[in-house]
Amino acid sequence: MAAPPLVAPTTLADPDTPFAVVDVHKAQSNIERLARRADRLGVTLRPHVKTAKSLDVAALLHGGAPGPVTVSTLAEAEAFADGGYTDITYAVGIDAHKLPRVIALLRRGVTLRVLLDSREQAAFVAEAAHEAGVAVPAQIEIDCDGHRGGLKPGSPELVDIGRILHEAGCLDGVLTHAGESYFAYTPEEQRLAAGNERDAAVAAAERLRAAGLPVGTVSVGSTPTAHAAEDLTGVTELRAGNYVFFDLVMAGLGVCRVEDLALSVVVTVIGHRPEYGWIITDGGWMAMSRDRGTSVQAQDQGYGLVLDLAGNPVPGLAMTGASQEHGTLTARAGADLPDLPVGTRLRILPNHACATAAQHHGYHVIDSTRSADTAPAIQAIWERITGW
Amino acid sequence: MAAPPLVAPTTLADPDTPFAVVDVHKAQSNIERLARRADRLGVTLRPHVKTAKSLDVAALLHGGAPGPVTVSTLAEAEAFADGGYTDITYAVGIDAHKLPRVIALLRRGVTLRVLLDSREQAAFVAEAAHEAGVAVPAQIEIDCDGHRGGLKPGSPELVDIGRILHEAGCLDGVLTHAGESYFAYTPEEQRLAAGNERDAAVAAAERLRAAGLPVGTVSVGSTPTAHAAEDLTGVTELRAGNYVFFDLVMAGLGVCRVEDLALSVVVTVIGHRPEYGWIITDGGWMAMSRDRGTSVQAQDQGYGLVLDLAGNPVPGLAMTGASQEHGTLTARAGADLPDLPVGTRLRILPNHACATAAQHHGYHVIDSTRSADTAPAIQAIWERITGW
Repeated sequence: MAAPPLVAPTTLADPDTPFAVVDVHKAQSNIERLARRADRLGVTLRPHVKTAKSLDVAALLHGGAPGPVTVSTLAEAEAFADGGYTDITYAVGIDAHKLPRVIALLRRGVTLRVLLDSREQAAFVAEAAHEAGVAVPAQIEIDCDGHRGGLKPGSPELVDIGRILHEAGCLDGVLTHAGESYFAYTPEEQRLAAGNERDAAVAAAERLRAAGLPVGTVSVGSTPTAHAAEDLTGVTELRAGNYVFFDLVMAGLGVCRVEDLALSVVVTVIGHRPEYGWIITDGGWMAMSRDRGTSVQAQDQGYGLVLDLAGNPVPGLAMTGASQEHGTLTARAGADLPDLPVGTRLRILPNHACATAAQHHGYHVIDSTRSADTAPAIQAIWERITGW
Repeated sequence: MAAPPLVAPTTLADPDTPFAVVDVHKAQSNIERLARRADRLGVTLRPHVKTAKSLDVAALLHGGAPGPVTVSTLAEAEAFADGGYTDITYAVGIDAHKLPRVIALLRRGVTLRVLLDSREQAAFVAEAAHEAGVAVPAQIEIDCDGHRGGLKPGSPELVDIGRILHEAGCLDGVLTHAGESYFAYTPEEQRLAAGNERDAAVAAAERLRAAGLPVGTVSVGSTPTAHAAEDLTGVTELRAGNYVFFDLVMAGLGVCRVEDLALSVVVTVIGHRPEYGWIITDGGWMAMSRDRGTSVQAQDQGYGLVLDLAGNPVPGLAMTGASQEHGTLTARAGADLPDLPVGTRLRILPNHACATAAQHHGYHVIDSTRSADTAPAIQAIWERITGW
């Protein structure tokens, strides 16, 4: 990894709170872990950049070179195209209204793959491709677990849609996402979810092939299944996004350890309510998001776990309440409320990295291997892509 | 109200979805309703601009002239100072680290009032004021209902803090916020919450006065109590923020009607899952926020209620699921799922306007009195203030 540029000799004690922090060492370790898995499984890794939405973070994914990525918005696709990325999957069902921006990217030489799961969408993609005189590579979304969009592998529409796309020169392949794996609470359940995800994608690809339709891409993935898959025979690529930062939901599933979490939010203690057992901070849901993903897990982490500014856990303390610009920290059952004077800075580990990162314009970057001090040095400031 | 400038001859059918919409007519009506109440109650209205975070929306508050406002971040204070506002209350407990920005605003001639509830904060405010040679007007936060920060009106520290501030020339007054009124489910409970809020603020002011300390500002308010208060004797100003847009939480409390909601998010249907009874849209939690405020109310509205593009309710339909860029619409018990083809645009009314607005860079402005069409004309685009 290239050392990020030093922008200013400041530390996490300097910017006004709240602000988001990325530990580049942890992000890099998380990235390398999944890259090794993908190598071992013999598939291309196509990271989803919707969590970090940052060209700087993405530069860690493929050793600094633009590689294949997945995006959740056309704003991301456009920003990554500007950054030199030429192989992008837009993994939200396509809307006809957005096709002009898709075609503009294709004309710039970006292989922008779109997703769809209906005859209507296949028809308007085929028509737009014909009118524009460009192939619009399209993937058929497959539903492997009843989570969201997609066709069941055995759906009667599958081959029809494949045929419409193929005749227009637009059939790229199939894509599925095991969204329900976020509720797979044991390693065995996660392995089963990964197997099921693979089976659904491969079955759909085989049905299309049996109908004489060429299927290039067979794409699967979610952070839990990407880390659980044991055999991806028939799959060409693996997607995952959250894994770069990880979060308390993923730690609760056992996909990572709490110490792997690369994203946190720095807040300041602004008050105490000893009569209620509360410490009040200046980081509310505007800084953390309203996401309470761990509320359905065995260990509910409230709005987040608390670290000191150096990154050491403050045991027994959790962020349990949030209003717009106020956070409430309380002691867990049996723990004492620590003595944290007004002005103390803390770091909060989030439930859901995608949602918390989205509340910020960018990241203050630290490297926990270089910063043994109480206030780690800020190595860089990385901007986020926003909007749609 | 001055007509907002026309920026382009576009309608809500034109921008790519999702995007946020403000109905300026509804916002204006909501603003006028509370302004009339404040007049009748004989108090100054100091709207909280944290919901809209927009100078354009704020221009509706005081007939286009900069009037007193409340802010939740120094970024808002600075943007409003740039916009000519000179009377601003920063209603989050002050942190010593933020005082340089406070003092810079005071030196620009902005009366920026800060909030605190501890001797430590009073001491560092007094010290900073002394060092800078400027008075830092400070309000003591009073806890009226155990919601968040503040001192009980009878707290032993109250007079000590008042004295520290007074000796430094910084004592401005007291402020309280009936945050628990968001859980006052009947008009009678809301009236009681408003009476209690007033009583707490006035009692604190009287205790300070009895100790020989001058109290100028006696500030109360929340959207529910501002609309329920019947007598504000002893109070000098009323604060509320959410009321400009209102939302489903406020409608659930009966503070407004669903038809008063001024903020919505335009989304597009991108798929159907008839086997599950789902309509899938391109508006997920990134567009709506993760806020589920109505989940604790009698009528849980999921992630929001559904309108057609013109603003008419689509009966029996609610947004019940959200992932980052996908929304799931389902029929309520007993209702049929309407036939909404791929490409149909809808508008979603949010649970919590503050949280939903925060997911967007700005607002596409319509006027429901001018737009009887299926796709209302966009009158203007108004930007939001972001960050801290």
